[in-house]
Amino acid sequence: MTNRELTEQIRKKRSFLCIGLDTDLDKIPGHLKQEEDPLFSFNKAIIDATHEYCVAYKPNIAFYEAYGLAGWKALEKTIEYLNEHHPDIFTIADAKRGDIGNTATRYAKAFFEQLNFDSVTVAPYMGRDSVEPFLQFPGKHAILLALTSNQGAFDFQTTAYEGKALYERVLETASAYEHSERLMYVVGATKAEYLQDIRKIVPGSFLLVPGVGAQGGSLQEVCKYGMTEEVGLLVNSTRAIIYASEGTDFAEAAAAKAKELRDQMAKELL
Amino acid sequence: MTNRELTEQIRKKRSFLCIGLDTDLDKIPGHLKQEEDPLFSFNKAIIDATHEYCVAYKPNIAFYEAYGLAGWKALEKTIEYLNEHHPDIFTIADAKRGDIGNTATRYAKAFFEQLNFDSVTVAPYMGRDSVEPFLQFPGKHAILLALTSNQGAFDFQTTAYEGKALYERVLETASAYEHSERLMYVVGATKAEYLQDIRKIVPGSFLLVPGVGAQGGSLQEVCKYGMTEEVGLLVNSTRAIIYASEGTDFAEAAAAKAKELRDQMAKELL
Repeated sequence: MTNRELTEQIRKKRSFLCIGLDTDLDKIPGHLKQEEDPLFSFNKAIIDATHEYCVAYKPNIAFYEAYGLAGWKALEKTIEYLNEHHPDIFTIADAKRGDIGNTATRYAKAFFEQLNFDSVTVAPYMGRDSVEPFLQFPGKHAILLALTSNQGAFDFQTTAYEGKALYERVLETASAYEHSERLMYVVGATKAEYLQDIRKIVPGSFLLVPGVGAQGGSLQEVCKYGMTEEVGLLVNSTRAIIYASEGTDFAEAAAAKAKELRDQMAKELL
Repeated sequence: MTNRELTEQIRKKRSFLCIGLDTDLDKIPGHLKQEEDPLFSFNKAIIDATHEYCVAYKPNIAFYEAYGLAGWKALEKTIEYLNEHHPDIFTIADAKRGDIGNTATRYAKAFFEQLNFDSVTVAPYMGRDSVEPFLQFPGKHAILLALTSNQGAFDFQTTAYEGKALYERVLETASAYEHSERLMYVVGATKAEYLQDIRKIVPGSFLLVPGVGAQGGSLQEVCKYGMTEEVGLLVNSTRAIIYASEGTDFAEAAAAKAKELRDQMAKELL
């Protein structure tokens, strides 16, 4: 999916909501645990209930790997279901991979070809030859960690480096990588005040913004400082939506919460 | 496995060799492709032929994920085989994971509990709360990327930050994390000259050193600058060993190459 197609979907749905699928057997409603594949059953119900309010889904790969083969199978079924029933929805493998040359190519093939995701999150620490292999696939995107929403971001990302923070250096350096037009960046909503400076470095790139809601980030601030003429934002929400209810009404509760966020986003798009 | 037990194995085998299992269907001998599980058949043959010359195996997780369910199954069988037949050998899931809190815990459980690896490689970019979850498991280790062997390492890792390179800052900061005694660090052999300074920051930690051989690093230099009284080194070799021959003699060729490296290491241990 190209940036332009993604923007079209955002305009059409009046939403730039991404829903995280951090599907956890300990948190899904009890009645689902009788199903043959509880992880997929939960995801399918969430997708069926929320797809009209969002433009992207982001399975967090760790949650599937934690269940071994059964988890991987549930992930495969989830992405197949999305690609078959909702091909207009952008898909993000939240994997935060980062490794050199031929290994990066393996990861890219795993997520882009084997699983047919539209994008994968990538860590920048190993530099150019760990990122560029993800940028060789037309219509596919690498979403590079820049400034994350967690406390540990202050350990290294914001530390000054020749007068610039490391995350600024990451944005600048990566912008010069081959096919950087296929790059998006992760910027946490908890650090919305940084978005003004970030937009000076990557004025047109899509930003994937976690941390609105449970982590305390403000949607209004993110839009004020981060939105571009082509929108340029995917704002992620996970727990507030997928775990809105622990009962048999979990899907309806998720839909209500997703609609609420979509309605807030629609106002920002006016 | 504790550091002390690992050192004992090194002394016993006169080797600090780690063999990378970057098992690639395009590179394994043709006759294995008729097997039901070619990836596992290759790994088993390599392990059977080389285990007396090495103290660690390091499957590169990307290579298994690239084959989806079949790959994950082969990875499971490989680690089960190692734990059953060679419980004294240290196992490394080369996954380079890095994500926050509960996600990091998921990855840790996937590799330490689900698959029962002794260690997993971890990326530092997201800071403390992305690393400490891996340090909560007695007898298990996180191996943090510090200074990697690839060209892209110069993009960010070696750049000066308040007078110190980022990789030095990573070593210093991580040394203060809770249970940092369970940390090891990746330092590429192609940058052996940095080892002298690295040993000032982490004098006692085990270092996992890739890049000897195919990538041009020197074993002698690595030992000169990086070896401690408890050895403190795991030197990895992958392609030179596992792809030493493309024919039906691949396992014997791998054994010969592993023995050659072991013999070089034995001299350094004198």
